[in-house]
Amino acid sequence: MTSKPISRYPVPKLEDLPQDIRDMMLQVQEKAGFIPNVFLTLAHRPDEFRAFFAYHDALMLRDSALTKAEKEMIVVATSGVNHCQYCVIAHGAILRIYAKNPQIADQVGIDHRKADITPRQEAMLDFAVKLARTPEAVTEEDRQLLRDHGFGEEDIWDIGAIAAFFALSNRMAHLIEMRANDEFYMLGRLPPPPKK
Amino acid sequence: MTSKPISRYPVPKLEDLPQDIRDMMLQVQEKAGFIPNVFLTLAHRPDEFRAFFAYHDALMLRDSALTKAEKEMIVVATSGVNHCQYCVIAHGAILRIYAKNPQIADQVGIDHRKADITPRQEAMLDFAVKLARTPEAVTEEDRQLLRDHGFGEEDIWDIGAIAAFFALSNRMAHLIEMRANDEFYMLGRLPPPPKK
Amino acid sequence: MTSKPISRYPVPKLEDLPQDIRDMMLQVQEKAGFIPNVFLTLAHRPDEFRAFFAYHDALMLRDSALTKAEKEMIVVATSGVNHCQYCVIAHGAILRIYAKNPQIADQVGIDHRKADITPRQEAMLDFAVKLARTPEAVTEEDRQLLRDHGFGEEDIWDIGAIAAFFALSNRMAHLIEMRANDEFYMLGRLPPPPKK
Amino acid sequence: MTSKPISRYPVPKLEDLPQDIRDMMLQVQEKAGFIPNVFLTLAHRPDEFRAFFAYHDALMLRDSALTKAEKEMIVVATSGVNHCQYCVIAHGAILRIYAKNPQIADQVGIDHRKADITPRQEAMLDFAVKLARTPEAVTEEDRQLLRDHGFGEEDIWDIGAIAAFFALSNRMAHLIEMRANDEFYMLGRLPPPPKK
Amino acid sequence: MTSKPISRYPVPKLEDLPQDIRDMMLQVQEKAGFIPNVFLTLAHRPDEFRAFFAYHDALMLRDSALTKAEKEMIVVATSGVNHCQYCVIAHGAILRIYAKNPQIADQVGIDHRKADITPRQEAMLDFAVKLARTPEAVTEEDRQLLRDHGFGEEDIWDIGAIAAFFALSNRMAHLIEMRANDEFYMLGRLPPPPKK
Amino acid sequence: MTSKPISRYPVPKLEDLPQDIRDMMLQVQEKAGFIPNVFLTLAHRPDEFRAFFAYHDALMLRDSALTKAEKEMIVVATSGVNHCQYCVIAHGAILRIYAKNPQIADQVGIDHRKADITPRQEAMLDFAVKLARTPEAVTEEDRQLLRDHGFGEEDIWDIGAIAAFFALSNRMAHLIEMRANDEFYMLGRLPPPPKK
Repeated sequence: MTSKPISRYPVPKLEDLPQDIRDMMLQVQEKAGFIPNVFLTLAHRPDEFRAFFAYHDALMLRDSALTKAEKEMIVVATSGVNHCQYCVIAHGAILRIYAKNPQIADQVGIDHRKADITPRQEAMLDFAVKLARTPEAVTEEDRQLLRDHGFGEEDIWDIGAIAAFFALSNRMAHLIEMRANDEFYMLGRLPPPPKK
Repeated sequence: MTSKPISRYPVPKLEDLPQDIRDMMLQVQEKAGFIPNVFLTLAHRPDEFRAFFAYHDALMLRDSALTKAEKEMIVVATSGVNHCQYCVIAHGAILRIYAKNPQIADQVGIDHRKADITPRQEAMLDFAVKLARTPEAVTEEDRQLLRDHGFGEEDIWDIGAIAAFFALSNRMAHLIEMRANDEFYMLGRLPPPPKK
Repeated sequence: MTSKPISRYPVPKLEDLPQDIRDMMLQVQEKAGFIPNVFLTLAHRPDEFRAFFAYHDALMLRDSALTKAEKEMIVVATSGVNHCQYCVIAHGAILRIYAKNPQIADQVGIDHRKADITPRQEAMLDFAVKLARTPEAVTEEDRQLLRDHGFGEEDIWDIGAIAAFFALSNRMAHLIEMRANDEFYMLGRLPPPPKK
Repeated sequence: MTSKPISRYPVPKLEDLPQDIRDMMLQVQEKAGFIPNVFLTLAHRPDEFRAFFAYHDALMLRDSALTKAEKEMIVVATSGVNHCQYCVIAHGAILRIYAKNPQIADQVGIDHRKADITPRQEAMLDFAVKLARTPEAVTEEDRQLLRDHGFGEEDIWDIGAIAAFFALSNRMAHLIEMRANDEFYMLGRLPPPPKK
Repeated sequence: MTSKPISRYPVPKLEDLPQDIRDMMLQVQEKAGFIPNVFLTLAHRPDEFRAFFAYHDALMLRDSALTKAEKEMIVVATSGVNHCQYCVIAHGAILRIYAKNPQIADQVGIDHRKADITPRQEAMLDFAVKLARTPEAVTEEDRQLLRDHGFGEEDIWDIGAIAAFFALSNRMAHLIEMRANDEFYMLGRLPPPPKK
Repeated sequence: MTSKPISRYPVPKLEDLPQDIRDMMLQVQEKAGFIPNVFLTLAHRPDEFRAFFAYHDALMLRDSALTKAEKEMIVVATSGVNHCQYCVIAHGAILRIYAKNPQIADQVGIDHRKADITPRQEAMLDFAVKLARTPEAVTEEDRQLLRDHGFGEEDIWDIGAIAAFFALSNRMAHLIEMRANDEFYMLGRLPPPPKK
């Protein structure tokens, strides 16, 4: 069985892209060593691409009481219940790296309730997963459970907004059948080579 | 019973907002006669605000084989199955105006299968609603049903991407309990006054 | 797009109907200014028609601790989760009139948890919606929540019986694709003209 | 463990009931040898009682292309998916008697797809069960499947209306925790005694 | 309508079976007066047959704080929500015999919450049914509810393991469309004949 | 965050186990290099342990038209929709090894419809996943889809029986919160070292 394509839509060549988008791609390639398919495939529509990554960065790079690893846990848990190949595998890799834990992403992507996380993180993911699958069922009681674990109002916005953004992202990935890059599967699974 | 607030989060005053956001608000107020609460409430976080509206405009203002009314039908139908007060009522108003039809929004928001729409539009909304609620269940068969009704690949992207964006939008509205402006309830329900 | 018919079944002419049914129709027409389609379409079967309205009146006209507006809230909320065009639109109109509130019906029909209602009314609708969608899941605990809000045993019967009757009504409307009258869309949305 | 009461609500004494209701009860007692609890428990509210049985009789006693056994199959199958003790057990007894088949009710109440019924009856129950649990999902395609099995438009009304009426009935039974009479459990399970 | 076959797969003749399996069958026939179809139909694959009954006996014949009747209640309740004809009817018969109660099986198979059981048994079946339908949703809170009713850790294993085993059994029965023997329908419904 | 224990129940020491079970453990340890937790945790109850592995081996080691990798795909896909940490991670490792494909397990565990598998394998997993989550919904039509892809009746039994066995297995793992061994996470992800 050969691999499926990375998108059901045409993937633009780097040289055909607007300068700002090409620059973004080269920058991420510089940093990661490869261009994640979410960049390559969404570049089919430059305006939506720009808004997508502006939104992503506003949420994920924002200073927050949530750690970077906790934000990625939200992505992996909600993408898991949405059965999104790209997001579980790509953000699973990022989660492994941020958490310096090679097991956490597989655990959280399958069932966050059984994962090696704190009760506070479990409450955070309970909330995120509920908003992800049945947003109308989220009530003040659910918010109160978060406060009981020490989350503030801005943290609740963070948790909910990340779940909301990946509700979009998961649906785009299902829509175009976005494929995860080969590189993500192994990232963060092995200890880094010793520094000299 | 008094009205609930328009958001569970603080709503910034116009004079405290960054210039670009204030300008956007004044512009929409000029056009609509009031500022829709989605502007006022999401302005609590300017960066996310900017990305949200950039994304919205990229999808909704884009030239497309879908009419403006059809795009709003997708918003209303998917927001209906997601039980989102703000989006059903606000975009219901816009749909009534674009479609020049005072009944269409209530019909589509309750059950698009019984609405006064064409079989092609019904297929479009079947696809959008499926992606909205069970994105993992969307298959090539579903895409083929759209092609059978004359939709091209870019139209399918439009349909899916609008459903995906409002999956985000509905969740933000549930998260902050965003309230629809009073003005939206009546918009587009009465025939316009005769021109002199 | 032309309008769909008011029923998939033949709609009898007034002059062909049994006297008692014709009288009922003329009476409602006298009062409302038009004949709601639920009368016209169910008249296709006179015996079922008579039982349907006898049941409706026994529940809805009964003296009760629930106000008329609260009874209609139950109809609108349960018909909303059942996606019933006729019942949401027609009873939404009645709810607006009884509650003297032009927004309440749209709010309750979309998501009663975000509507401008009291906590007691929210508990009432939580119970009604649960019985409407998953009747087997209603337990003594749910009844107790109602008692905690001051509802008595007869009130609980009222709430449940109205939800039960509209479980029937919503299914009949889906079965025959009953269409809401044009008149209902605007009823109760504008303030009444000033009395001289 | 002692038996639960037949209703959570007061059960009126025969002598306290209005004459017409008492007469109905004595008549059914005469015929069946006992008074089914649905009569005793719903008599708590005479007006609703009268409408309930008028509706029941209009549907179940109506001349129809459906046999009496087929009508009861619809009751048992839809009450099965609604997990309604009274209706499955009481109407299961009636189904056994009409069908002269001691096994059919248990089979249909558990899973109509595995029951000893004809493909036409299976299609009838597929439709009824769909309307019972997800009424909004019933489409013209579902109706067409019934026509393909020889059902006419009036038969489709019968099937749907019986499912709709027992949607009400099942909810009333869950609401008041209506208990099935002891007599129903064995009715129709043994061959009738030989006539002399 | 003639009866459906007992399996969609070939049913081996007794004389063609391995000695140990034939012996088991004769032994059960000796005891019960007939060979339950689960023996005849699963014998199509002797190795799976042996493991199936070894597992069944390890759970159901084990000394336990659960009574034999309580174990069968778990089987009937979980098979009920899984709509499994063979298991509800066959184990319903066994439950009637163990509980010396001709009504309990029909009640538990339809809705355990309305059955004549103790609050402790209701908690036991709540847990079993949850594990049966949504195993991922079972949490420590659910286990605590069992402990609050006096169940120990080994009892919780028993409850869960029986629900788990019949998750397998129900699926095998659906897969091969296993039919319940005629004999089971009446077993345990009549009082035993008086001893001389 | 420290790791959760491998079971909520006591894990017997090797030296306390019956000889046959200890031998099985040493044998698997010899072959795999470690003892999978499913052996250690289920050994808490030796009789159930023996039946569990007898059943597992009868299905998984049986000569079949399904390849070993295809059998493991069924395990991973059904355990994925059941959110079972142990089974997805442990059998994911085995699948990678049998399929000689380091990506297949993550893909199939998240969403088999997007995995790099053949249409025949996709049909196989569609059937398995349906039986896993809604066994009552499997019909002759589903079996026919398998035949259309070249599966024979015995292959259909294999597919269904593996899904059924892991319905049990997933529930046992959720019940005792069985943890996947650290070793499984990396197994089959790297190419084997070159032979000298």
